[in-house]
This record gives sequence, structure tokens and C-alpha cells, in this order.
Amino acid sequence: MSVRTAGSGTPLDTLADFPAIPSGWAYLDTAATAQKPQVVVDAIARAYGETYATVHRGVYQRSAEMTLAYEAARARIARFIGARSPDECVFVRGATEGINLVAACWAATQLKAGDRIMLSMLEHHSNIVPWQMAAERVGAAIDVVPLTHDGRIDLDAMKAMLTDQHRFVALTHVSNVLGSILDVQRAVALAHGVGAKILIDGCQAVPRLPVNAAALGCDFYVFSGHKLYGPTGIGVLWGRAELLDAMPPWQGGGSMIDKVSWQRTTYAPPPGRFEAGTPHIVGALGLHAAIDYVDAIGLEAIHAHETTLVTQARDALGSLNSVRLLGPDDSAGIVSFAVEGVHPHDVATILDEGQVAIRAGHHCAQPLMEALGVEATARASFGVYNGPADVDALVTGVERVTRIFG
Amino acid sequence: MSVRTAGSGTPLDTLADFPAIPSGWAYLDTAATAQKPQVVVDAIARAYGETYATVHRGVYQRSAEMTLAYEAARARIARFIGARSPDECVFVRGATEGINLVAACWAATQLKAGDRIMLSMLEHHSNIVPWQMAAERVGAAIDVVPLTHDGRIDLDAMKAMLTDQHRFVALTHVSNVLGSILDVQRAVALAHGVGAKILIDGCQAVPRLPVNAAALGCDFYVFSGHKLYGPTGIGVLWGRAELLDAMPPWQGGGSMIDKVSWQRTTYAPPPGRFEAGTPHIVGALGLHAAIDYVDAIGLEAIHAHETTLVTQARDALGSLNSVRLLGPDDSAGIVSFAVEGVHPHDVATILDEGQVAIRAGHHCAQPLMEALGVEATARASFGVYNGPADVDALVTGVERVTRIFG
Repeated sequence: MSVRTAGSGTPLDTLADFPAIPSGWAYLDTAATAQKPQVVVDAIARAYGETYATVHRGVYQRSAEMTLAYEAARARIARFIGARSPDECVFVRGATEGINLVAACWAATQLKAGDRIMLSMLEHHSNIVPWQMAAERVGAAIDVVPLTHDGRIDLDAMKAMLTDQHRFVALTHVSNVLGSILDVQRAVALAHGVGAKILIDGCQAVPRLPVNAAALGCDFYVFSGHKLYGPTGIGVLWGRAELLDAMPPWQGGGSMIDKVSWQRTTYAPPPGRFEAGTPHIVGALGLHAAIDYVDAIGLEAIHAHETTLVTQARDALGSLNSVRLLGPDDSAGIVSFAVEGVHPHDVATILDEGQVAIRAGHHCAQPLMEALGVEATARASFGVYNGPADVDALVTGVERVTRIFG
Repeated sequence: MSVRTAGSGTPLDTLADFPAIPSGWAYLDTAATAQKPQVVVDAIARAYGETYATVHRGVYQRSAEMTLAYEAARARIARFIGARSPDECVFVRGATEGINLVAACWAATQLKAGDRIMLSMLEHHSNIVPWQMAAERVGAAIDVVPLTHDGRIDLDAMKAMLTDQHRFVALTHVSNVLGSILDVQRAVALAHGVGAKILIDGCQAVPRLPVNAAALGCDFYVFSGHKLYGPTGIGVLWGRAELLDAMPPWQGGGSMIDKVSWQRTTYAPPPGRFEAGTPHIVGALGLHAAIDYVDAIGLEAIHAHETTLVTQARDALGSLNSVRLLGPDDSAGIVSFAVEGVHPHDVATILDEGQVAIRAGHHCAQPLMEALGVEATARASFGVYNGPADVDALVTGVERVTRIFG
């Protein structure tokens, strides 16, 4: 096994920023969740241990300061993803809640029986099940865009499938299984061409590519903080102001109201309308620190770095006779593969013995597994802290798997 | 102003455990959110900075360990509130989401046009608006239990109002404005007497009283982590297993499914069914640490401590001619009051100048404000870290208010 030694470093040279990655551990499950840089851990500890207070309600100075910090996080996020205003950014638990919010609140007034929703074969369960639930409520139907031979959403097929019955399209920007990158601008043009709105699931894209949601032209964009080197329990729904304005509330409670009475309750404008209850205050502050961290490195640099690692991994794994690579060659930071005759769980277990952490399973994408004709895949996914030594460790581990099962 | 000095301490002697409370600052806004003991800050920093991984999905050791820690938190919560099984405890963002979940998912199959829901005049917006939204969806009606003269939910009136049209009752265990404590067992008997289910909002109770949800006899119980000295963004919905089992899912996504296909998706049993997406993993671990902390002190001791402080505060404030005390004398840790001729916001602002943090406003309880005939109240609320010096500081501050406005 190739062990990372002090000084081997990475092209980004960030490994020392990550206290939870011990020397010699190849953490290759960033697509599930990213490790946290010390600056994020520190921001969280400071928020709880030095400056803690509630937001929006306190009259005293500490609470006023925390409110400023919370709203500064929102403004930072708006700049990061190209929102035209912080008010277009709604704090949610994660991308899953963001998609559910749109599927429930947009659909509540805009979707009716006979309407059609278009998804793709590449979607995560979080971008399938909320639409199934919404479609079932009103009697709408779902269509599924197939994949190209190398595992991309087939936009030519989508073009042929779209009709004016299609009211909504929801697609992943980067596949969590294959790393395939969507041509968002073309997908947007196709959706808008039939008058449909389009949501982009940016979970895997935001940590890996520069993203300007407004410039991409989509209507909604969602991502999770914990995959962006930030805290758990926080994520963002970006939506065009005019669409959010027209949507009914999500959950009822404090902060989302204008005036409550037993006769008639009126609601606050976005984003407050969609943020009932005391928010995950410290989650927002931690996400702010995470965005500062990745922006200082630069998403262009991160993308180049991960693309290099993907190329190295695909070249090395592809040279092993027993390995079948899935997905496109230019996948963003994610490599799914199969080892002939070995269950992916066994691959992952043996790799774990060699201090290499990958994921094996259906990756919350059972329909994609069916389309690929597999029950599960082994998946290695990269982050800013990985380097060539991690690729070496992965390849050495897979070679060991083939020896054990050979 | 009375300044807390080293050694003045509190009967619980816990002040030193709270790094974000500087010497001389009287933090009296615990009903909004509690400060965090160092053990909670440490647990969170350790989870992000040493042991971080995702849960439920990873094949490697770190993820398996984090899954154990996450589920250990659930088991700890179950013991803490007397659940019969950890599976009865659903992780939510906070009490607000817990109530919304029940109002949406229980009501989805159980509530129909013509049914009635019973709330009280004492409820927080989070226990009003979700029921208004649920009632509007199906055409149900809401009734409101009035208060006794000293600000308790009038259970005699409720008894007279209940009919067999009432399918659901939702009441607060401890009022966030007045501190009034509900006789939960009697409320449960009344609700069950007409065949209604009953949810108790335990946000202010769980940090202040020993609570055994199952023994109280209610059907659902909710609370927030951040009011229990734990992290933001995490809370708990407890529900009787047979009720949770019968409820449709909340949000769609990863982890809440059994099998996803384009034809038919089936759902996991509770609690997973209600926890779509990557959960607030570190929030659960932090809440575990918070529960260990308060349990080590003991909720009986905490209740006695806060009752002593409330009595001292009510006695001292009540002796000032210009102060009108609201709520019952035996309120749990919370004292709302009005200073004649002075807006509560001005009271809070002047107190803040003297390093006393209280809340002023409608406390997310506008219907209660209307019933009390006020626009807002000033509210002081106590926690484990407060002591007699904080009461002195509060009273000194209010005396200063009366001098300035006198």
C-alpha cells in the first residue's frame, strides 16, 4: 500500500488544513460528505463558545451581532452562487429539503392533473421521490430522460421528449455516481423552450465547479453545506425572486409570519417565509467559513485538481483487466467502477483494511443502478485534500482485491 | 448595577461551564436559546475535527463508528424522554419542524372536512400556524382554549369545549411567554376522552422539568436541541410507534426509502421514513452531550433552581409600583412583565446597557398578546447558569428604567 508521507502533499497542498484526516488515510468519500478544514471547525466553536445568541428577535447587542453574522452568511452565499439578492437564498437543512420545498410549494399552486415533470435516469433519490410525491398529489406524470452511452443526461433525447405539457424539469448538475457534468445552459434553454421551469441539483457541482446560478439561467438551484466542507444540517435553496414570491409557505411557525391571528394569518416575504422556527444559526456561520475557504483556493483550481486525480485514477484502474470503469472520462471528481466477480461491498471492505475509504452501494440512485445493470458500484470521490498518493493507495487496494478474489 | 463577581456563583455553580457568558453579563434569554456548556462545544468540535464521517452508508470503519454515535444519540434521547424505543424518536430541525411534520403527515390521512382541532390561547406561532395550514387544506376548524386569570390553559373550559368532532389537541407544556406549566396528564385524559390525539410542545419544558413523554400519556412530544443547551438545527419529535407507523412520509429523498423505482417507490419504517437526506449528524452528537450535561445536574435540581430565581425575581419586580407581572407565580423559569408607560423594547434596550439581556416583543405569540391586551412584553428567562446576582442585575436595571422614564 502506498502510504502518504509528510511532504508528499497535494498540488493544492491543503491536507494540513484538515484535522480529521490522519496521515496515511485516503479519504475518498467526499461525494458523500466532505471533511472540514480547521477554519470551519474554529468558526463553529467560536459561534457556540464565544458569540452565541439567537437571531432576529433579541433586542440586546449580542443578538443583534449574531443576526448580522447570520445575514452576512446569506449575503456571502448569494455572492458565491451568483444570486441577484441574498433574499433569493433560503436556508434549508440540505439539498434534499430544498428540492422537497420546491416540489411542495411551487407545485402547490402551479402543478395540476395531466401536467408532466421531466427528470433523468441519473438522479439521486432526493431528486426523484419528492417529484413522485408531488405528482401523485395532483395526478401529474413523470418522464425520464435516458443517458448517453457514457453516462450523461442525453439532452438530444430530452429535446425530443419535451412537450408543452411539461411544466417542470429537475436535473443534477454533476452525477453523484458517475461524476457526469450537465450542460446546464442547454438544459435550461430546452426546458424554457416549452415553458417549463427547471431546478438544478448542485450538491456535487458546487464543491467542484465554479457555479453562477443566475447566469446558468435556471429557476432553482440547491446544494448542501456538508458536501461543501461546511457543517451538517444546513443547505441552500436559491430561487428566482419572482418565483419564490409567488410560492406559498413551507412550514408554519415563528419568523415566517407577518401577522398571526385566529381569524387570518399572513406571511412574511422570502426568504423568511420559508424559514419557520429558530434556524440552524451556527450552521449558516460555518457554511460562511467553508465558502471563504473554498473561494480562497478557487473553484477553477479545485476543478483542475480533481480532474487531474480522476484522470490518474481512471488511467490506473482502467489498466487493470478486472476493472470496469463507469461514467465519462471527464467526470468531475467522482469515479465509479466495478471489479469483475467481486461485490462492491467486498471491494470497499478490503480497501478499508488498507486505510482507503470509498463508498459501495446504490448511492441513493437505484433507478440508475438498474439502468447500468448493476446492483451497486464502488465509488471513489475526491476533494481538495486528496493527492496522487490517494490515487496510488486506491489502485494498490484494488490490485489487492483482485489478488484476493483472483 | 449588581455585577457578578468571582465566587458569587449560583446554587448550581455551573457558570464556569459556559465559555460564552462573560463575567458580569446577565444572560436572561434562555427561553429564546440556551448558552452551551464547554462539553457541548467540545463534542461538536471533536465530531468535525477528529471523527467526522457520514452515517448509514459508508462501508469503512470511520463511517460505521459515526453511525453508531448517531444512533447512540437517538437512544440517549429515548432514555431521556422516556420513549419505549429509539425508533419512536425522529430527528428534526427543531420543535417547529416536529409540529409541522405531525400537522402534515398525521393530518394527511386522519383529518377530514368538518373535523376540529383544539389549541390554546397560550400557543407559540409554531403550534398555531401549522394547524391553520393543515385545517385549511382539508376544511377542518380550530378551537381555542382560553386562559385562567393567572395565565394557564383553562382545562375546565377545555373540558366543556371538547366534542367528538375534535380529532387533535396541541398544547404547550410550558408557556414560552408566561412560564405557565400545563397539567399534561389531565389534558391527555380530556383529549383521549373524546378520542382525540394530543401533541405536547415541550420546547420550554424539557430544559426545565423532568419529562417522561410516554408516562405523561400524550401521543406526540416535540422539543428543540438549542433550547436544551445543545446545538442549533436539531430537535426531536417523539411519537407513539403505532402512530408513526401509520403516517405517510414527510420529505422524499435518500434514507427514507425502501426501494425506489420509476413505477413505484416504497418507504422505510420510522424513524428513517421521516429523515430524508443526510441528517444533521453533528447536531445529534451535540444534543447527546447536552443531555448528558443536564442529566448530570438533574432536571429536579434545575427546576428547583429556576423556581427559586423566578420567585426572587417576581418578589423584587412585584415590589416596584410601576411593574405589572404577568403569568402565574409558580411559572417555570420565565417571567414576563410590563413597566408602566414604557415600551418593552425600551426596557430591554436600557437593560442591555447594564449588561442584562432580556427579550422584548410578541415572543412569536401574537394571539396571546392580544388576549393579554398588550403589544409586547419584557421577558426574563433563566437557565442553569443564572444566579441571584442575575436577578439583582435585572431588578437594578428595571429600577433604572423607571427612573429614566419616571
